[in-house]
Amino acid sequence: MDGMQLPAAAALTARYGAGAEPKLGPWNDTMALLLSHRSVRGYRPDALPAGTLESLIAAAQSAATSSNLQTWSVVAVNDPEKRKALAEIAGGQRHIEQCPIFLVFIADVSRNERLGHQEGVSLAGMPFLETFLVAAIDAGLAAQNAVVAAESMGLATLYIGALRNDVPRVAAMLGLPPGAAPVFGLCVGYAAPGKESAVKPRLSQEAVLHHETYSTTKEKALRASYDEKLAEYSKRYEMAADNWSQRVISRIGSISALRGRDGLKAALRSLGFPLK
Amino acid sequence: MDGMQLPAAAALTARYGAGAEPKLGPWNDTMALLLSHRSVRGYRPDALPAGTLESLIAAAQSAATSSNLQTWSVVAVNDPEKRKALAEIAGGQRHIEQCPIFLVFIADVSRNERLGHQEGVSLAGMPFLETFLVAAIDAGLAAQNAVVAAESMGLATLYIGALRNDVPRVAAMLGLPPGAAPVFGLCVGYAAPGKESAVKPRLSQEAVLHHETYSTTKEKALRASYDEKLAEYSKRYEMAADNWSQRVISRIGSISALRGRDGLKAALRSLGFPLK
Repeated sequence: MDGMQLPAAAALTARYGAGAEPKLGPWNDTMALLLSHRSVRGYRPDALPAGTLESLIAAAQSAATSSNLQTWSVVAVNDPEKRKALAEIAGGQRHIEQCPIFLVFIADVSRNERLGHQEGVSLAGMPFLETFLVAAIDAGLAAQNAVVAAESMGLATLYIGALRNDVPRVAAMLGLPPGAAPVFGLCVGYAAPGKESAVKPRLSQEAVLHHETYSTTKEKALRASYDEKLAEYSKRYEMAADNWSQRVISRIGSISALRGRDGLKAALRSLGFPLK
Repeated sequence: MDGMQLPAAAALTARYGAGAEPKLGPWNDTMALLLSHRSVRGYRPDALPAGTLESLIAAAQSAATSSNLQTWSVVAVNDPEKRKALAEIAGGQRHIEQCPIFLVFIADVSRNERLGHQEGVSLAGMPFLETFLVAAIDAGLAAQNAVVAAESMGLATLYIGALRNDVPRVAAMLGLPPGAAPVFGLCVGYAAPGKESAVKPRLSQEAVLHHETYSTTKEKALRASYDEKLAEYSKRYEMAADNWSQRVISRIGSISALRGRDGLKAALRSLGFPLK
């Protein structure tokens, strides 16, 4: 085993658990960086090097964007009062108040709508679900590039989907125009001591990657094996020792667990997305 | 200017155009890789190193996923007849037939639905727009990690949003169960000679990045300046010399330009996403 394979093998074991590693393929420093991702829920208050935000946004804007429409925006929020309100909306996530950079990613068709108004053209494609979906996916591609860039600088990150608990309140707080809706937040900063967390195992590749057609043949066995791995991970690093199946059920087993996101469609409509 | 700043400055100029570069921040090899992204529309047929697909999927699965629900899947399609049909659905995109790896990313809540059935639990959170949106965004985060991994190996990529032109036909071709819908495709391979393409400039950071609240004060001027840059890029590298505003208008100015995607909501409902 040469010097390149050792970290590769260890990284794949951390990500999939012993015995569930996929075939070892091409490996390099970027692969090592991507495989080492962890979500971090506690940040040092330390300021970041000058220009960090601009570098993250340059990375984000370098991601692909459907037909170059660039239908996303981002709001950097520093005001402590706003941070506190956003943390509350997200169900009391204190790291939103701690992290030196907090970004709200916006599905934003409003810029192109203004373009249409200014050019005297009605943009008939705007009111469709497709247009919102493109904006939300492109915000995701952009944010993931920002995450990779941040992690390459030794910074940690955390996506905050719970901003969708109250999309209209977040939109009002940020002064968003119609046609702009927050889709998620992102914490960026140095992990606080003891909060670095560990790589979390995922489902086996066989459960997620299909060839030619979708197959569920091995799925039940793969889930049973993953349930064991995640219960072990939870026991070691988290409070509860739930397995994966229990967590999925508690997360989407009831409408109350959506914490208001069952109203997302109505909320998006109120913000100017007809979702036709 | 030291050795690190020169490539950084050049990369920012390529991405934003001369005079529109953001403040120079932290820079490293990963930043250089992310900033150099180009969409490539022509591939060499050469096979890729063994294990390339597995490495890309390991990178994809290492991206964050909301509450670890992992509600996405991917189908690797090699069958030439299927490739041809997918290229047709996408409006005659021949690179879908050429590239050595073609992936269809799936918003997939069906795995968790099967989990619920097998455990005898009804998952009340399933039928909501929120649940589909999480699946689509998480597919985006995963795919972007695969793109970064591919580019780190010297490979090129292209997202294929045009698979959404006929979501039910793609789903049938791949044998997707209810609760699984294709959201986009991804070409991966070595760029064919002459098809490497150039870094495409984006809107100025000031148009996309807001501080504390959303602002449109400078937007019209920023758009005018970007229109010039993109017209110049188009004249140099593409057929038409359209500016950005013209392209946005032609892309979303009519329902026919959506090429069937105005029916996306009905299509998703037919695939088992009620989008409540």
